[in-house]
Amino acid sequence: MMNESSYFYYFCETMKNAGNNIFPIFDELINKTEKEQLLKQKSLAVWMTGLSGSGKSTVAKGLERHLHEHGFLTQMLDGDNIRVGINNNLGFSEEDRTENIRRIAEISKLFVNCGIITLNCFVSPTREMREMAKDIIGADNFIEVFINASVAECEKRDVKGLYAKARQGEIKNFTGVDSPFEDPTSAALEVNTVELSIDESIKKVLDYILPKIEYN
Amino acid sequence: MMNESSYFYYFCETMKNAGNNIFPIFDELINKTEKEQLLKQKSLAVWMTGLSGSGKSTVAKGLERHLHEHGFLTQMLDGDNIRVGINNNLGFSEEDRTENIRRIAEISKLFVNCGIITLNCFVSPTREMREMAKDIIGADNFIEVFINASVAECEKRDVKGLYAKARQGEIKNFTGVDSPFEDPTSAALEVNTVELSIDESIKKVLDYILPKIEYN
Repeated sequence: MMNESSYFYYFCETMKNAGNNIFPIFDELINKTEKEQLLKQKSLAVWMTGLSGSGKSTVAKGLERHLHEHGFLTQMLDGDNIRVGINNNLGFSEEDRTENIRRIAEISKLFVNCGIITLNCFVSPTREMREMAKDIIGADNFIEVFINASVAECEKRDVKGLYAKARQGEIKNFTGVDSPFEDPTSAALEVNTVELSIDESIKKVLDYILPKIEYN
Repeated sequence: MMNESSYFYYFCETMKNAGNNIFPIFDELINKTEKEQLLKQKSLAVWMTGLSGSGKSTVAKGLERHLHEHGFLTQMLDGDNIRVGINNNLGFSEEDRTENIRRIAEISKLFVNCGIITLNCFVSPTREMREMAKDIIGADNFIEVFINASVAECEKRDVKGLYAKARQGEIKNFTGVDSPFEDPTSAALEVNTVELSIDESIKKVLDYILPKIEYN
């Protein structure tokens, strides 16, 4: 209701008296709930943490394919679209790694507020980093998934040849070699990619998140 | 076709022989075309440039409401969700303003690749900044809209009180007061918010972009 005593009325009169023809639109931006309704899905950030070579991106890619085929809109965030894009001015110092994760979390938040399910694949080796990501995105929308494989196993896989380079000293501060990985203590889900096949790993995550993203 | 001479076959064998159970999934990420198909829309970045107070956010909010009601998924990016979020560690030096626009363009690119229509509202005062944004997002997905109102008009509106502060020297390098705004020379569309009402302004942008975002 608009009456002469309301702030809204006062504001409109002030604007009109100011002689311009731009009136502020009091509508809010389209919010998360409205976007989820449009997409017929609930949004969520699935934060996959684990060593290089543990299978984060492999699981996420399979997961994205399954979700897409079931009509879900997803956004995968990993080194391939972050380190070469928005974070191409960051290195691997402790400060830059923290800033890397901070920006990724802020981007995830934008996507989650847009109704989208994000699949984040980053080593994010410390509990502090993961806590920061959770704080930025919001605990209610944050699912931490520990993609677990031992250093020995990841080093044996060494798909990208990074462990070899780290051992030879060509890469410094490489997580699992000369920089620590702190196992999650409060992950919602742990997926051991040594014990499980890719398909089983994908299915484990899918089974866990489906009830949380289905629109009722 | 997979045969023993193919690279694919060789790669799989190598991986299997390496004794791990992570096989690279050769599927690509879900691409822009697939996401546009899911959303039944074509994605685009609508880049609104103009002085503070020219009406960028007002037009974009109205535009977003219209688009949402027509079933389009949009993401508005403006100071309210960027400067307080991902770019909260940037100031207003020339370097920081450029970095501000660079990051925004990279985020827009992620959204556009996710099939989404972004509505970007940033003063982005120089042609160089807007060119950079276009280069990052890609010219094919970039629509520059000049939200035009004179400095005198914007200063008269001064909804946020920023011009008054700039005149009093409380804000330095304020575009239109002591920092230049370079009028676009190659905008796809110009919307003069002095001559047009809000509704007319919104309609002008809507009429222009609708044929470009409708899914055939």
